[in-house]
Amino acid sequence: MNLPDIAPLDRKREPALRKLLDGKAKPLGALGRIEDLAVRLALIAGSATPAVGRARLLVFAGDHGLTQAGVSAYPSEVTGAMVATFLAGKATANAFAGVVGAELFVVDAGVASDLPAHPALVDAKVRKGTRNAAEEPALTADEVAMALARGADIAAQAFADGVDVLVLGEMGIGNTASAALLLHRLGPAPLAECVGEGAGHDAQGLAQKLAALERAAARSPASRPEQVLAEFGGLEIVMMAGAILGAAAASKPVLIDGFIVGAAALAAIRMAPAAADYCIFAHRSAERGHTLMLQALGAEPLLDLGLRLGEGTGGLLALPLVRAAAALLIEVASLEDVMAGRL
Amino acid sequence: MNLPDIAPLDRKREPALRKLLDGKAKPLGALGRIEDLAVRLALIAGSATPAVGRARLLVFAGDHGLTQAGVSAYPSEVTGAMVATFLAGKATANAFAGVVGAELFVVDAGVASDLPAHPALVDAKVRKGTRNAAEEPALTADEVAMALARGADIAAQAFADGVDVLVLGEMGIGNTASAALLLHRLGPAPLAECVGEGAGHDAQGLAQKLAALERAAARSPASRPEQVLAEFGGLEIVMMAGAILGAAAASKPVLIDGFIVGAAALAAIRMAPAAADYCIFAHRSAERGHTLMLQALGAEPLLDLGLRLGEGTGGLLALPLVRAAAALLIEVASLEDVMAGRL
Repeated sequence: MNLPDIAPLDRKREPALRKLLDGKAKPLGALGRIEDLAVRLALIAGSATPAVGRARLLVFAGDHGLTQAGVSAYPSEVTGAMVATFLAGKATANAFAGVVGAELFVVDAGVASDLPAHPALVDAKVRKGTRNAAEEPALTADEVAMALARGADIAAQAFADGVDVLVLGEMGIGNTASAALLLHRLGPAPLAECVGEGAGHDAQGLAQKLAALERAAARSPASRPEQVLAEFGGLEIVMMAGAILGAAAASKPVLIDGFIVGAAALAAIRMAPAAADYCIFAHRSAERGHTLMLQALGAEPLLDLGLRLGEGTGGLLALPLVRAAAALLIEVASLEDVMAGRL
Repeated sequence: MNLPDIAPLDRKREPALRKLLDGKAKPLGALGRIEDLAVRLALIAGSATPAVGRARLLVFAGDHGLTQAGVSAYPSEVTGAMVATFLAGKATANAFAGVVGAELFVVDAGVASDLPAHPALVDAKVRKGTRNAAEEPALTADEVAMALARGADIAAQAFADGVDVLVLGEMGIGNTASAALLLHRLGPAPLAECVGEGAGHDAQGLAQKLAALERAAARSPASRPEQVLAEFGGLEIVMMAGAILGAAAASKPVLIDGFIVGAAALAAIRMAPAAADYCIFAHRSAERGHTLMLQALGAEPLLDLGLRLGEGTGGLLALPLVRAAAALLIEVASLEDVMAGRL
């Protein structure tokens, strides 16, 4: 994939935006991080009236050959079952999307099973699951390029449909294992500090997961992002990295959920550092490596609620903060107008 | 005011609710604090399907005689001007209420100026501002009783109108000064640690504020909640304490904003400890004494965004989390149904 052109934000516009916020009918700086977010949204949009009304959650799904090495407490079949649950409107992401007002699509990036067609399902399957990264590269270079390109296309389609904000989420049994390897190599960070309990592990399960990941890491010294993605997968992560690059290229904000979407953001940002400006980090996950990942990214997330579900649930919960920041810019009167009675 | 009867939550129902959540199609505990919130909402409602759809923000407004002692960087006139801004739909609280889907009413608890009638303005004025607490008691015992009763009535009216969740906010130049005195006496906590910059103070302004509050504190050793409220005010705080007691008596959840609403919650909870179960602490304010206040209340708020505006803005931003918690209980399938294909 040729990386799309991503424009760095024009920081010279920030003082004028701060002045606009300082003139609002409120004490200086009284909205704390919401003010910082407002500035960023305006810089992303190149406008003091950024549009954030229409939001789309894309849940990228994929399976992982690494599950054969015992990295997850759940079987791979759960990935397909959860896709069916999203499409039936019965998963947590659906419930939260309803609360905050976001549309939801599932993207089959690489689910192992065949999925029946559905209006809310985007078929972008590159292959049925990744290879077992403990034994061999999870993906070929071509598969990585294809997944990146499809992710960018899916983001571009969302904006062509009129979407203002992307929220990324994922479903893939075994994907905290891939994400841990990506953090280890791209952070970089010691592997043992990147590995956590994922969807649930006892001490023995965690030791087995770490041993499998040590085998995978020992196979390859890869450190370039595309190489690392090929070695360790997974397809949903690579495709999300492509979607992030696509959102940045389109100058649109993208809400980054937790540890897995964070790994995709880490890969995207290592490929194209300017993409970081378009990523809004939604929350600090309870998954062990996430704080280390946020540090590697220099990111301070908006929420800290002990979430570790994925599906984009944390991204969805941060969406009202994004909308509040835009509403502050657009809807709130200036103190000057208030004191002059011009309302 | 005779305190209304407040039923403590029936904690015996908690294990069944935890089991319900553990059976959802997600890893155990993967929604962190949202799961705790779901349990609390269900206990408050006495139902595993708590209603949280209709929310009402009540912005209680009042003026403070303490402003004559130089406790605020802004003149009292700003209180009335901001009430006009709320009624014109142009304040930050209006913008955020629009984003999260809450109706907004302003309650004139004790604004110094005459306010023209408006459909979104509740006239509950007890008197035109409090007396200067640096020199004399801010309110009489009768005025406190009247404000508490009116607050409880306004909450009861909201529930009679079909409101499911109250969000409390306030506007009152000088009210961080009253709130600091309440925290000092009801926390209790050393006065100097309770006093912060409020809407904005330089070092000299802050010293002047502290000196005025030391004079007020030296006037009276009051420590009983009703006495403390009479000594230090203000009317919007007392009326919010009444609204909190009213919400708890009606078994309805009430979102507590920052330092000022927190002072009202502190007073209400010191009067009726069972009221604490109905209070959902929305955020950690940047106002200096708030962390101390939360500690005194044993509360861990949901958000930490450096807000210090008031108006209920922090409460509004936490409302989607409340709705997400209820949606988790009501809308999400069980893992058993997912794996059996019953969707």
